[in-house]
Order: sequence, then C-alpha cells, then structure tokens
Amino acid sequence: MKQLLYGVAYYDEYMPYDRLEKDIQMMKDAGINVVRIAESTWSTHEPQNGVFDFTSVDRVLDAMHKADIKVIVGTPTYAVPTWMVKEHPDVLATTPKGSGKYGARQIMDITNPTYLFFAERIIRKLIGHVKDHPAVIGYQVDNETKHYDTSGSNVQLLFVKYMREKFKTLDNVNKLFGLDYWSNRINSWEDFPSVVGTINGSLGSEFSKFQRQLVTNFLAWQVSIVNEYKHSGQFVTQNFDFEWRGYSYGVQPRVDHFKAAKSLDITGVDIYHPSQDDLTGIEISFGGDVARSTKSGNYLVMETEAQAFTNWVPYPGQLRLQAFSHLASGANMVAYWHWHSIHNSFETYWKGLLSHDFEPNPVYNEAKTIGSDFRRLSSQLVNLKKKNKVAFLISNEALTAIDWFKFNATSTKNYNDIVRMMYDELYKMNIECDMVHPSSENFDQYNLLIVPALYAASDNLLNQLNKFVKNGGHIVYTFKSGFTDEFVKVRTTHQPGIIHEACGIYYNMFVEPKNVSLADDPFQVGKENNYIETWMELITPLTAEVLAYYDHPHWGKYAAITENQYGEGKAIYIGCIPSSAIMKKILEHAVQKAGLWGKDQELAFPLITKSGINQMGEKIRYYFNYSEEQIAFNYPYKEGLELLTEKPIKAEEKLDIDPWEVLIIKEAEKQID
Amino acid sequence: MKQLLYGVAYYDEYMPYDRLEKDIQMMKDAGINVVRIAESTWSTHEPQNGVFDFTSVDRVLDAMHKADIKVIVGTPTYAVPTWMVKEHPDVLATTPKGSGKYGARQIMDITNPTYLFFAERIIRKLIGHVKDHPAVIGYQVDNETKHYDTSGSNVQLLFVKYMREKFKTLDNVNKLFGLDYWSNRINSWEDFPSVVGTINGSLGSEFSKFQRQLVTNFLAWQVSIVNEYKHSGQFVTQNFDFEWRGYSYGVQPRVDHFKAAKSLDITGVDIYHPSQDDLTGIEISFGGDVARSTKSGNYLVMETEAQAFTNWVPYPGQLRLQAFSHLASGANMVAYWHWHSIHNSFETYWKGLLSHDFEPNPVYNEAKTIGSDFRRLSSQLVNLKKKNKVAFLISNEALTAIDWFKFNATSTKNYNDIVRMMYDELYKMNIECDMVHPSSENFDQYNLLIVPALYAASDNLLNQLNKFVKNGGHIVYTFKSGFTDEFVKVRTTHQPGIIHEACGIYYNMFVEPKNVSLADDPFQVGKENNYIETWMELITPLTAEVLAYYDHPHWGKYAAITENQYGEGKAIYIGCIPSSAIMKKILEHAVQKAGLWGKDQELAFPLITKSGINQMGEKIRYYFNYSEEQIAFNYPYKEGLELLTEKPIKAEEKLDIDPWEVLIIKEAEKQID
Amino acid sequence: MKQLLYGVAYYDEYMPYDRLEKDIQMMKDAGINVVRIAESTWSTHEPQNGVFDFTSVDRVLDAMHKADIKVIVGTPTYAVPTWMVKEHPDVLATTPKGSGKYGARQIMDITNPTYLFFAERIIRKLIGHVKDHPAVIGYQVDNETKHYDTSGSNVQLLFVKYMREKFKTLDNVNKLFGLDYWSNRINSWEDFPSVVGTINGSLGSEFSKFQRQLVTNFLAWQVSIVNEYKHSGQFVTQNFDFEWRGYSYGVQPRVDHFKAAKSLDITGVDIYHPSQDDLTGIEISFGGDVARSTKSGNYLVMETEAQAFTNWVPYPGQLRLQAFSHLASGANMVAYWHWHSIHNSFETYWKGLLSHDFEPNPVYNEAKTIGSDFRRLSSQLVNLKKKNKVAFLISNEALTAIDWFKFNATSTKNYNDIVRMMYDELYKMNIECDMVHPSSENFDQYNLLIVPALYAASDNLLNQLNKFVKNGGHIVYTFKSGFTDEFVKVRTTHQPGIIHEACGIYYNMFVEPKNVSLADDPFQVGKENNYIETWMELITPLTAEVLAYYDHPHWGKYAAITENQYGEGKAIYIGCIPSSAIMKKILEHAVQKAGLWGKDQELAFPLITKSGINQMGEKIRYYFNYSEEQIAFNYPYKEGLELLTEKPIKAEEKLDIDPWEVLIIKEAEKQID
Repeated sequence: MKQLLYGVAYYDEYMPYDRLEKDIQMMKDAGINVVRIAESTWSTHEPQNGVFDFTSVDRVLDAMHKADIKVIVGTPTYAVPTWMVKEHPDVLATTPKGSGKYGARQIMDITNPTYLFFAERIIRKLIGHVKDHPAVIGYQVDNETKHYDTSGSNVQLLFVKYMREKFKTLDNVNKLFGLDYWSNRINSWEDFPSVVGTINGSLGSEFSKFQRQLVTNFLAWQVSIVNEYKHSGQFVTQNFDFEWRGYSYGVQPRVDHFKAAKSLDITGVDIYHPSQDDLTGIEISFGGDVARSTKSGNYLVMETEAQAFTNWVPYPGQLRLQAFSHLASGANMVAYWHWHSIHNSFETYWKGLLSHDFEPNPVYNEAKTIGSDFRRLSSQLVNLKKKNKVAFLISNEALTAIDWFKFNATSTKNYNDIVRMMYDELYKMNIECDMVHPSSENFDQYNLLIVPALYAASDNLLNQLNKFVKNGGHIVYTFKSGFTDEFVKVRTTHQPGIIHEACGIYYNMFVEPKNVSLADDPFQVGKENNYIETWMELITPLTAEVLAYYDHPHWGKYAAITENQYGEGKAIYIGCIPSSAIMKKILEHAVQKAGLWGKDQELAFPLITKSGINQMGEKIRYYFNYSEEQIAFNYPYKEGLELLTEKPIKAEEKLDIDPWEVLIIKEAEKQID
Repeated sequence: MKQLLYGVAYYDEYMPYDRLEKDIQMMKDAGINVVRIAESTWSTHEPQNGVFDFTSVDRVLDAMHKADIKVIVGTPTYAVPTWMVKEHPDVLATTPKGSGKYGARQIMDITNPTYLFFAERIIRKLIGHVKDHPAVIGYQVDNETKHYDTSGSNVQLLFVKYMREKFKTLDNVNKLFGLDYWSNRINSWEDFPSVVGTINGSLGSEFSKFQRQLVTNFLAWQVSIVNEYKHSGQFVTQNFDFEWRGYSYGVQPRVDHFKAAKSLDITGVDIYHPSQDDLTGIEISFGGDVARSTKSGNYLVMETEAQAFTNWVPYPGQLRLQAFSHLASGANMVAYWHWHSIHNSFETYWKGLLSHDFEPNPVYNEAKTIGSDFRRLSSQLVNLKKKNKVAFLISNEALTAIDWFKFNATSTKNYNDIVRMMYDELYKMNIECDMVHPSSENFDQYNLLIVPALYAASDNLLNQLNKFVKNGGHIVYTFKSGFTDEFVKVRTTHQPGIIHEACGIYYNMFVEPKNVSLADDPFQVGKENNYIETWMELITPLTAEVLAYYDHPHWGKYAAITENQYGEGKAIYIGCIPSSAIMKKILEHAVQKAGLWGKDQELAFPLITKSGINQMGEKIRYYFNYSEEQIAFNYPYKEGLELLTEKPIKAEEKLDIDPWEVLIIKEAEKQID
Repeated sequence: MKQLLYGVAYYDEYMPYDRLEKDIQMMKDAGINVVRIAESTWSTHEPQNGVFDFTSVDRVLDAMHKADIKVIVGTPTYAVPTWMVKEHPDVLATTPKGSGKYGARQIMDITNPTYLFFAERIIRKLIGHVKDHPAVIGYQVDNETKHYDTSGSNVQLLFVKYMREKFKTLDNVNKLFGLDYWSNRINSWEDFPSVVGTINGSLGSEFSKFQRQLVTNFLAWQVSIVNEYKHSGQFVTQNFDFEWRGYSYGVQPRVDHFKAAKSLDITGVDIYHPSQDDLTGIEISFGGDVARSTKSGNYLVMETEAQAFTNWVPYPGQLRLQAFSHLASGANMVAYWHWHSIHNSFETYWKGLLSHDFEPNPVYNEAKTIGSDFRRLSSQLVNLKKKNKVAFLISNEALTAIDWFKFNATSTKNYNDIVRMMYDELYKMNIECDMVHPSSENFDQYNLLIVPALYAASDNLLNQLNKFVKNGGHIVYTFKSGFTDEFVKVRTTHQPGIIHEACGIYYNMFVEPKNVSLADDPFQVGKENNYIETWMELITPLTAEVLAYYDHPHWGKYAAITENQYGEGKAIYIGCIPSSAIMKKILEHAVQKAGLWGKDQELAFPLITKSGINQMGEKIRYYFNYSEEQIAFNYPYKEGLELLTEKPIKAEEKLDIDPWEVLIIKEAEKQID
C-alpha cells in the first residue's frame, strides 16, 4: 500500500433518492479515500439471466474517480438473484436442515455447477467491465465466504471421492475412524452413507475439514478468474470473518483462513466488537493478529462498525480509538459497514456512519477527525511491521473436534473460549502475538508458543513441538492437547501422548471439578479467584515440577499445572480450566521464563500499547486508553514525537492519556532491524 | 339486544351419557338464557362426505326452546372432519413449518377451494336447517378465525397477484421495499419468490397484511352465505380472540379486528385472563374496549373462563366480579367456555362451570347468583353506551413491523408490551378508553390520543395526527412512532419524521440504555423506579419543552421525554421505555393537560370504576374492588340507587366495598346527552 | 445361576491393535468371569448382504474359553449396517420428526419386514454358529430395545387394525376416546388418520400402549428364534433400561418391562447413576427392584458404569460399594460398560474399566478386589431371595397419560418424579420394595401398597385395590389416582372415582398452589419444609380422618391429606405434591400403621441396609455407608459373621463403617422360611 485507506461500503443501489454527489462531498469532508461496491447486488447488475446492467457501477466509478476516491469492486456472488433460484432451485444448498429457501444471502451450494456457471459469467462480465477504470485499485472476491453447511447428495458424493483419494482403502477408513463401533463399518464404497446423520466424531470432523477445503477451492477459483483481468497495481482480497457470537469472537470454524488466504494478494477481514462500556480492543487485536499472520503482512479491515446497533453506538472518542487500534495491529485500511443506514430489510438497525437521515451526526463528525489524521500521518503509519516473539498455535481441526467432544455434559464452552481466555490475558499484559497454523514450519522464530487445547494433532506436529522445546523454545499447553491424532482417534498411550515427553507428565483419568481450587493458592490469587472449572486431568509428574496441585479430598495427590525443562526449553502444562486470575499468573510466569517480560509489561490494560517499525524504519508506539478514566504513566522509551499533537516527548516523561484516547509516539532514532 | 344474555357453550355431542334434560334444569337454575352450539363438530354433523346428520342439533334446539333458552348456532368450519383430510390432504394449510398434519383444529388453508366447497355446503345445510327454529337468535361464523400461517404455493401465487394489483410495477415494489439489498431485487413477476424465506421486513410485513386480508375475506364470505338464510332479528357474529400469552394479552397479530368486524352484525370476543391473586380486570377491560370499538357499539363475550385451569379457578366472588366487569365495558352477553368439563382430549383441564362430575360446585353456585341478578337488572344494564374522551391508536401494521425489527438483540418485548404498559396505567387511574384504527376519520371526537410505538404509518395518517394536535387535540406518542412508512421503509428525514412537527423535536441516533435513569428524577418516582430500559432515542428539542433528560455520562445532553405546544394542542413524546411508575406519571400529566382529570381519577386501582348511559338514558356507575381487602371510598356523585342491593346512595356517601365485590349505582337524574 | 458373574462388555472389533491375550490376562487378574460380545457389530459380522464373517466372535470365544471366562452373545440387531440402509432405506423408522438418517443405533422400524428378514438371518447365522461353543452361557436378544417412535404409514395401518380388533366398532372408539371433540370423530375405518398429529390424549396414549406392545412382540420374536438354538443351561435375556435423565431415573416409558420380560429366561438391565458426592445407591436399588420384580427372581446387571463420564469417575471405595449394592438388591451379575475406553466415536468419553491407554488405573485396581471377593463369597451371596412386604404399583399407562396431561402449565414434573419422590423416602428409611404391575393378581402378598399418581386405571384394577384395603391391606395413594379410566377418559363421578370408597373422600375441584402450606404444620417439619407445590385437590372428607388441611385464605376448609379405615385396612390419600420432608413423614406414618416399622427403620440413609435369604437358607444382611463420613451403629440382630473380613459379629455389637464401605453379615442361625 502506498497510503492508509479510510473507507466505507457504498451502495448507490440502496439509496432512496439520488445522493451520489452529496454523499461524495460528505465523504471528502470526512477524508474517506476508498469505497467498496457491488458485492451484494447481483440482481441489479444481472436483472435477468444473461442481461447485464452496470449503470450503477459505472456511475459510481466515474463520480468517485472525479473525487479522487478509490474503489474496490466486489464480485457479487454471495447473494443470488431471484431469477436464478426460480430457474434452478438446486443452486440452493441442501443442509442438515433440508432444502434451502430463497431469501437470505449465503444460501447457495458453492459446488453447484449451475451456480458456478452463473457466478463465473457475472465475474467475467463485471471485472472485465471495470478493470480499466482508473478508480479501481482492487477486487474483493465474494464476501464472508463459508460453506453454508452444504451437504446434499452431490456434496456427499464428492466427499466419498475425497475419502477414497485420501485413504485409498475402506480398511484404512474403518480402522482410523473406528467405524466398527455401533455397526458403522463401511465395507463397500457404494455403501458410504451420507455423513449428515453420523455420530462418529472422526468422520464428522473429516467432513468439516472437507467443507473448509471447498471454501479454499471456491475462493481460489474466483481469484484465478479475477487474476485474468487484474492489472498490475490492483489487488485481490477477501473479507474473512470470525466465529460469530453477535460479534467477532474467535477462530472461524468454517474456513481455514491460512489456506484460503494463499490465493489472495492481501488479506481482508471484518471485525465487529462490543462497544460503549464494553469496548476493550481485544477483538480488534485478535482479528488483526489472525489477518496479519495469514500472509505475514499488512491487511485490510474491509468492514467494521460505525454506529451499528443500539448497544454499539460509540461514545465520543471511541471511533477514533478503534481506528488507530486497527492501524496499531498492522491494518492498512479501515472501512465501515456502512456509509449510510439502510432504509429497508435485514440490516436496517446495523447503522452506518450516517443515520437514515443522511445528516452529519456525532459519529460522522468524529470520523472527519480520523480521516484528517489518516491523511496527514499516512506515510508514517502505513505498512507497519512487527516481529513478535509470542505466537498462538490455532487449529481448525482442534476446534471442530472439540465441538464433537464437549468438555462435559453441561458446559457450553468451546475451543475458542480457551483460545480467548489465554489471548485476553496476554493482550492485557501488552504481549503482542502472531498466530501460527499447524502446518507452519516457522515455529523457531518465536520464543514462546501458546497452545490452547490442541485436541486433534498429527504425530508430526507434536514431534515438531517437542523439537521446538528441545531447541530452547517455550510452550504453554492446556489440557486436552495431544489427546487425539489428526483423525480424532484417541492415542492409545499414556496421555498427553507424544507431548508428554516435553511436558514430563502423564495422566489417564480426568474428572469434572466441583468446588475445586488449587492447593495452597500457589498463584496468590485470593480465595475468590482460586478455582478451576469444567475439566480436570489427574496428572502425575514424571520429570516435571508441579506448579499447582488440586485441593480435593480424593484427587489432591494429582498435579493440576506443571512445568518441565526439556532440552534447552520449557513446557508448561495446564491440566484444567483455571480462573482468569490464575491463567494470568501462569502466563506472566511463562512470559518471564521465556525472557520476554519488558517495559511494556509494566503497563497493563486498560492502558494498551502496541508498536512496530514503519516503512522509514522508525519505531512507532501506540498507547491506548481503553477506559473512562484518565491514565498517567511514565513513557519508558527514548525521546520521540507524539504524532497526533506533534508534541515532543522526552524519555521517561510522565504522560497523561484521556479516556478513550490514543497517543502515537515516533521514536527519534531509527531502528536497526 | 333486548336483554342481557348469560350463556355457556354446550355440546350434547361431548356428553358421556344423556344429560340434556338434567343439564337444562341446572342451566335454568343458574339463569343461563343462551347457549352456543355446533361450531366444533363438523364430523358429527357430516359423518361422511355429503351425508348430513343434525340429530344432536335438533334435539338441543328443541329442548332449549322448550326451556326458553336461546341458541346461537356456530358454523362448524374451523375443525375439519377426518374424511375430508383423507380424501383431500391439501385442505391442510402448508405453513413455514411444512405440510399440515391432521389432529388439531385451525389447520386448514382458508383459501383452498376444496375446503371452501365443503365449508359452504355444510354452512348452507346447517343454517338452512336451523334458520326457522324459534330458539335460534343468531349465528357465529367459524371460531377464533386466523390465517393459520397458510403460505403454500397457491397462497404465494395469490400474493403475487395482490402485489401486482396494488403496486402495478416491480420497479415500485423494488424501490418501496428496498429489494436491491442482498440481491433480493425482482425483475420479472415470474421470478417472485415465495416470501416464506424472506429476510426483508417490508415484504414480510406486507405478506402479513395480505394474510390478515384473507381472514377478513373468509369471514365476509361466510357471513354473506349465512345472511342468505338469516331472519330479521337474528344476528351474525364471530368470536375474535387476542394475542395469546396463555391468556388474552393484546392486539391480535393475525386479524385486523376492525376490518374483519365490518361484515358482522355484532362483534363477539373471547376473553381469558389470570385469576385468583392475579385478577386485575385489565384484560376484561382491554378486550372489551377493542370489541366495543370495532363497531362502536355493544358486543358479546362469547367465551370466558369458568373454573378453567388450576391457576384460574376463581376465588369466591371473582366470577361475579368478572361478569359485571364485562357488562361495565359494554358487553351484552357473558358466556362461559364451557358448560361442563370435557372428559377426553385437549381441553380436559380447561374446566367449565361444572366439573367432570356434573354436580353443583362453588363456581356453579356463584353463577346462579349472577344469572339471577342479570335477569332482574337486565333492562337497566343492557345496551350501556359510552362517550370516551381518550382513545388508543392501535395498529396491526406497527405490531407486525416491530416483530420484524425487535427493540434490541435480547429483549423479548413486542408492540403489545408497549400498548399494555400504557393501557394498564390508564386503567388503573380509571380512564376509560376507546380503540381507534389507523384508517379512522373520527380522531376529533377524542381529547386525548394514546399512540404507542406507531412504527409503521403512512404520511397521510401522520399528517392527520399533526392536524389533530393543531386543532386542539392531545397526543402521547412513544418512541419509534413515525419511524417508517406503511411499507416499513425508514423515513429519510430527521426522526420522528412527519410527527416531529407536532412534537417539536428531532433525533437521528438511538442507543440501548444500561443503568440509565432520568436526570434529577423529574417525576419523583424514587430511586427504585427511576429507570428506563431496552431503548432510548437521543432527542434534541426544537420547540418542545423537555420533561426529562437522560442521566448518562455521554448521552446526558439528550432529552428523553418532551412536551410540545402545537397549534391548539399538545404532543408528548416518550423516547424510551420508562418504568411503569414513570409511565404512570407521564400519563397522569397528559390526562391533566387534556383537561380530563375528574372525580374518577381520585380513585385508583384496585378500586375500579366504569360508567355509561343505559337505554333509559340513566347514568350507571360500576365500582369494582379488585383486591382481597375491603375498600372504603366517598361516592363522589349525585344520589342514586345501588342496584344489586336496591339500597339508596346519598351524594358523597362513604361506601364500603368488600373484597372482589361490585356496586352498581344508578344516578337518580337522567343524563342529557 | 451357579455363581456370581462379574463381567464386562468386550469388543475385540473396537481394538486399535491386537489386545486379546493381554486383555484376558488383565480380566483374569480382576476376577472377570464373563464377557458380553457381539451385540453392536452387525456390520462386522455381515460386511455385505448375505456375507458372514464370525472371525472375531470365534477368536474371542476360543480365547475366553481357554481362560475359563464365560460369554454372553448378543444378537447384533439394534444397530444396522450401512449396506442395508443403502439397499433399503425404508428399514429406518419414520418418526414424528420425519424419515430417519443413517448414523446412530436404534433407528430402525422394528416392524419393517426387510429389517426383520435380515435380523432373523443374522440371528440364525450367529446363534447357530456359537450355540455349541462351551464358553457360551447365554444370549442377549437385541439391546435396550424400544420402539424408537416408529410411526410411519405402515405402523399407522397396524394401529388401525389393532384398534378394530380391540374395540370392534368406531362407535366404541368415538365414545371411549371422546372423538367428537374438535371434529376428530372417525366415521369410517378408511378415514382413520395418522395419530402423529393427534391432540387427543386418549388416542395418543393408546398408540403409546400399542408401540410398547410392538417392543414386547419384537423381543418375543427374537427369543423364539434364539430358543430354537439354545441349549439347556443357556439362558436368554435382554438389557432393559430406564427413563433416562442422563442416568437411569425411573419407569421406562417406551417398554412395559413386565410384559416384555415374559419371554425371557432371566431379566437383564443396565443401571447408570450419579456418582462421586452424588452417589446414593437409589438408582441401583430402584432399577434392581424393577428388574427383580419383572420375573420375581434374581436378575443380571448387564451394564453399569466403571469410570464413565468426568462427573461419574468413582471415588475410592465407590466401585466396590456399587457392586455389592447390586448384589444386595438381588443381582447375580454385575458387568461394566465397558472393558476399555473406546478411541473413536460417540462414547469416547463413556470410559470403561481401562482408560484409553489400557494400563491399570485406580478404578481397575479396585475392580480386582471386587472380583476377588465375588469369587470367594459367590456361593453365599448368589441367588439372594427376598420377601418384601411393601410394593409400588407402577403403570406405563399412568405415565403416558400424565405426559399428555401435565400437572400444570409450567411444571416439568412427570409421573416418575412422583414415583421417585416416594421411592427415595422409603429407600432412605430402609424399606425394601417390590414393584407390581397393574395386571398383577398378587397384591395380597403385601402389607402396604404405594400407588403414585395412578392416573389411568380400569374399573377392575381400582375395584381390586378397594378389595385389597377391605381385606386388611394398606395403601398410600397420591393425587390424580383413579381420575381416568384405562382409555384416559375422566370418570364422570365424584373424584377420586372408584377408590373414593376406600379413601372416604371426594373432590371435584383442584387448583395450583402458590405459597400454600399445611395448616398448623401437622407433620412438624418446620417452616422451611412445610410447603406443597404444583397441584392441590380440594378434598372433602366423607368418612376419612384429615391428616392435614391446606393453609390458604380461600381453600383452607379443604383437606390435603387424609386417612381412612375401610374394612380391615387403611387408605391414605395425598391430594397434593408435598415437600420431601412431608412425604417422608407421611410414609413413616403409613409404614407404622401397616405394622412394618422394624429395627432396620431405626437406621437411615446414608446408612443403608438390605437383606435376603441365600441359597443355603441363611440370612444375609448388607450394610452400606453412602457418605464421606464414618458411621457407627449398633448391629441390632443375632450374632453373625462379617463375610468380607470374616470377623464374627456379636448381637447388638457396635460397629463402625467407613466412608463408602460395605459390611455383609451372615446370621449364625438359618432362617426358617
């Protein structure tokens, strides 16, 4: 990127009256320099089968270009027109709930050839039509693509072929997946049943992996088409999203972001998060870390909230805080869903920068200050680079397998709860993290790996992790890690299987804790916080040092948390779900042991700091106040310049930071990388 | 009506043994003078296709006539026989849940021609058969008719034709309903998808309106058939019901009672309500106000509870209290579901006046006193007329639209919660209300209009409401009023749209309150009651006086509740959901400003008073004690006669009213209307 | 049985590697002397239609025989192979939820002839193959058989024929089932609708009875086939299970255990129960009492928990306590689900004796002590006989009818809650009970019948119960007993119908209690425990003595609990759901009045005692400590020998019993029966 992008999604098609000129004037006033168009409006651009109408696209492109606002054009394939479904109802995905019904977006079978034929044609028509327009800087293929649970008979057929290709024989399948159980054994490929009704978690997890591969393939196919048209200097991206709990919570279960990002030029994501009193910046950081890590580089925030819902309307200062938080994580673009608030249909209350009346309002007015600062500071803030020393190993496979095998009969916690329980504490202690994929071969660039609940993992991955420790790396594992292989078959050895070597422990029993604490409060968290919940492994240390025992009349002899020197490194193993306070202490301990405790860790949430090296090689340090109270702190680094106020900062100067405010300090001396 | 009717539903067909003679004797003892028959027993009257058997009808008619008990005959069309469904399974409604299954009542497609053919035939046979019988005073067409979510392909086809007839072109539809959004645009009538899966609230709301029209049409069609047979002096009614929350709660979502009542001679309703410690009389009053307003006249309570469920069995005195409460609202008939308690099937525990043993019991014994008083006082209490000065504007369209667009992500409140929150407070301050329909042209007969959450409304309606204020009327609006047009498209102006003129305010942002109160407790409700919830609009006054500001660190500058002089009248606007205590104070204020605060308002729940003019032009005042405690009060009017005791009452006399008791005072002087 | 059996379910087919020899060694070490095999692995034994492979069966049989471990062979019919469903999808049951999907077990239509053909063939092949093997001591037909809600059109057709056979004419059906209601009347057999959608509880209950009959027939059919092969000395059993609330809770709704047990040689059951701090022994006792009563003899515990779930892993001592508790109820076999913990699929976390690592663990080690004691004490503990004086009358019909007619609109309690509320209190006071079936003709062998909520019952049954009291028996009835006949038609007399004679009361009204207690705390349970809930009948005593009145301003004149002398006996009637504390007092009172209060009743939970006569005619008394605390008590009987320690016990000796420990005392003198 040459500059910071500040943008909005813009739909001329949704306007209740002609607003284009007025909207562009208001965008210019706010410093908006990019809009995303077209990704939802197939029925407007192709009103009938084979009839194309790009009037609204042309009109917007021309007007934007005249105003020097850049445009990202989306392929409109994630919402299908009525005519297509009337002509070919089978373009709708058949899911475990049955046949699809027209209405919502994201309801099609992404393997259906009719759909693919129409999708390819509109992509070629649209992208061919716009590619030479000077306003166009890039393309977004589809939007928030997932597999939509497509699992009809055609998809089952593809799955059987995938299984035969991968496992060669049914004997392999029966053995690896344990299909003799409950008479599920398959003795002829023709007998392979639809897995929609399966009760075999190994088979179900493999099907989920296959479904994620469908997404990767579908996106790569779209990218390959767009690439035929794309000019040099134009990019192709997608808009990934995350596990959705009414906001962007954790690892996306239905897409392998690392694999799906391979075909893209740059990763785009949307990030939505709680706001008002609940704004913490964690989701901005987490989503940013995932996005940045997928291609080890800067990324685009294709969508984030402006006013959005009634419980998200930002307090004064929060929109600014959020925008710079995205930059601090490595974003090169921040764009809002949506420019205006839509007057009909599903997202009427997902409000944009403008309300339904199109008038300036406090949120829009705050955006104007952001746009102005982005423009002024663009060259100093764009393309921020990081060299993090801590990484999370995140795994779609572990996530899916834990969905099949819940922690217990009543708990609603899933894989992402464990990921976030650890991520949140590191965020709050100002440890910046990367995310690594199980297929990564670059563990060695990190000092400390965080490995939450790696329930499903191949021998190879676990052996690599052992080697990482042996070579001097540090790992924090939680419970359940290493328990099953990549086919979700429980290992037949003592647990935690292969990693028991690095961890120096074993267990073969686990129970559900009721009123269980850690004996003698080893982390000094006080009675209120000294508890564990949901799951506990009854651990016997071999070579490990015991950091905590359980306090329980019958299980008190077993270890809860251990630390083991293995070769040059250390592995910490957490055999239960501890309180947040305990988790914080464990992670502090791990960070210290890994030699990563620094000046930033003397500060803590709600004072968040993130940093990186800009394209001129300068160190940029962001400080965010995620609270309603002013915070004072001693700036612990060399002298610099606060970029927003252009005020010089002395080394060790005591600084005040207002509620929901941000400081951006550029160190005076260049960094030597 | 010539006399008060006191009745029961009676099914000779359900009797475990021949009871007719004994039952009639017990009815006579209880003063029962009307029974309703036949509306559920099609399979008995037409045991096979085209084979008719009215034995049980004839037998009951003759016996009742002999005993001088009148009969209302129901058309038996709301529960279809087994033979019909076996022959023609498609008479069952296809709903969003799929095809229907035989079993319950109210499962048919009321547009299905096969069903309509059979329905017409049984109506003609039955009504033709009974019309000359001297016991028959009227007819009930169908029962608790709704559209039963019928939405199969035939209904979708009708809807497309309805849309084309109404909107002429798809360009209109696409624009008014915002169908470009998410590629929902329809470019050819043939492409019109089933709206069962729609995510477009405008389209969904229009479909609901269309479905309500099906009900209106169906009832009008039945009425037109019955009218061919009906003699002069006989009436046709229906049995409307209300939003059901285990009892009759609010405006019926699936029927437009005003439109559906047009074809009837008189409106009938059923009213069920909590009892025992939870008996308040509110549902009796609310349902009565709706029923009375539909045709601006007296109405029939076709069904209400006798013993009913275990939590409804009335305490001693309550059955009486309820019966006279119906009369006080303008009912000319009170009838129980059901005479006896049924020995099998779905309503075994919906107990009647008699228990399963058919013996006298405390509830039946209390009914005897009611029947006796009804008979004695009939000429003085029948045909009570009212001239209320306060009316609620209630809207099916607003109700449906708010179902599509909930107040927030977690709230379960709907339109009727807002209606009832206001209605309940007015009831408790003894303000009698009418209900007006959005199509009304008679707003001017009222001094004060209550307009809860009028979320969907045409420009025309809102302009009329402005005019009403300008001409001296008073209105209390709540939040969300005026926000969208009649197609549920958000207005593109400042909110609250057109009514902002009368209200003298505007807003374009709204948030969800958390721990928000009104600044400085302006209504003096105390800390416990000073709160708002669920929804708050950030209001800026233009010409309005601010009655309350929010107490909030960031939104404290915005108004919560305002009052505006506009022309000769005043408009109060409530921009949030306040506590009941606050709502009470606002409405007291509004009643006072409208000059309607009178002597009745010096009394309050649990002492309820209602009044009207009887057919001799005399003022009848009812006083009800809805509590377990005796209440003393000074009767504030001119001298009169307490009709139940025949005791003279002096002006200003101090009266005692026992728990769950009623007084009926006829003023000595006639009213001059 | 000649000896106590101590067993496990064993699946060579599920093993991740060849373990047979090692497993058998470990079994021998643990005293395992029986395994159950084959009942879930049809797809392994018949990999393709008509291709049979009993390799794994033969291999296990031979190895077990060599090790002198006996084998019970299951027919593998409760989980169907993939090839069968691919060839014949209609073998899957159509249920109210629609067509079936392949995946789980227990999904077939047990009336489908294709399924029955294949089932018969595999049974004949397998049983024919193994019948002469010397290791085989018996057979289990199918497993946990139920009707799986099969209710497709073929089942409906069978039901119509069943109805015609049973009721002869539709006039009977219409009258008995009250089908005139809501036009459900059926006037021609051809019109008989599927009852899947019925709202008629009488019809629905009859269909449930018919479905239970399908189970009885299916099992009898399997037994008849196996009997063709069975050698003398071999037995046929089934594995019944109970109402499942995450554990074995109460009477099984979908099987009539008494009828289904008729064709078996011996009853088998599985019993799963809470453990750890929640272990009480109640489910072991309840399930055992049902099993023992079905055929008035000893029974087999085919499955119970070893480690099982995280919340069930037994504390040290609990596995032993459980094993001997089964024996104390009359079990001759205790077997675990499952030998090992399964590495894939649905029951991965339903852990066996061994963990996934197959190593010895604390639970396995405790099993070794049990196996050793079973072997040593076998001849003294096997074939324990009981002569209980108290019995529960349990009724599938009452259970189903109460599912149709819940206690009130919000309560989730069902029939089994009432059964257990009473059973639990008797268990805690060390009253051993039998279970009797409504068709029993042996009431007279009991002194006291407990009759919970006998809501549906024939005149004949109720007359018998009256006669039982008249002849000197004692009964405790609860509310709702006698209310409807066997067709769930409410009786038309005063309630409680026919039994009002023995009870000396009547009522015809019932209400839902809110904050209701018993007047003057007649059972001295204290304020906290003096409450009733959910249901209250307003009882008027005729000849009965009132044990408790309601404390209520309006219903205070009615009786809550009564006792009546009738002939030589007494009937207690409980007209409401009382607190457990009140129920305990009522039952204590009833036990005393029945002359059954003895020495065992001076002890109480957590000290549980059970006893019987062994095959040598010796009295065996078990004492169990179901708590974490040591308990001291005076052994109240004649001198004896504690069998586990071989320590002599003196009469009246003070004994200590450790937490979760068991004592088994054999009295010195033989019993004269």
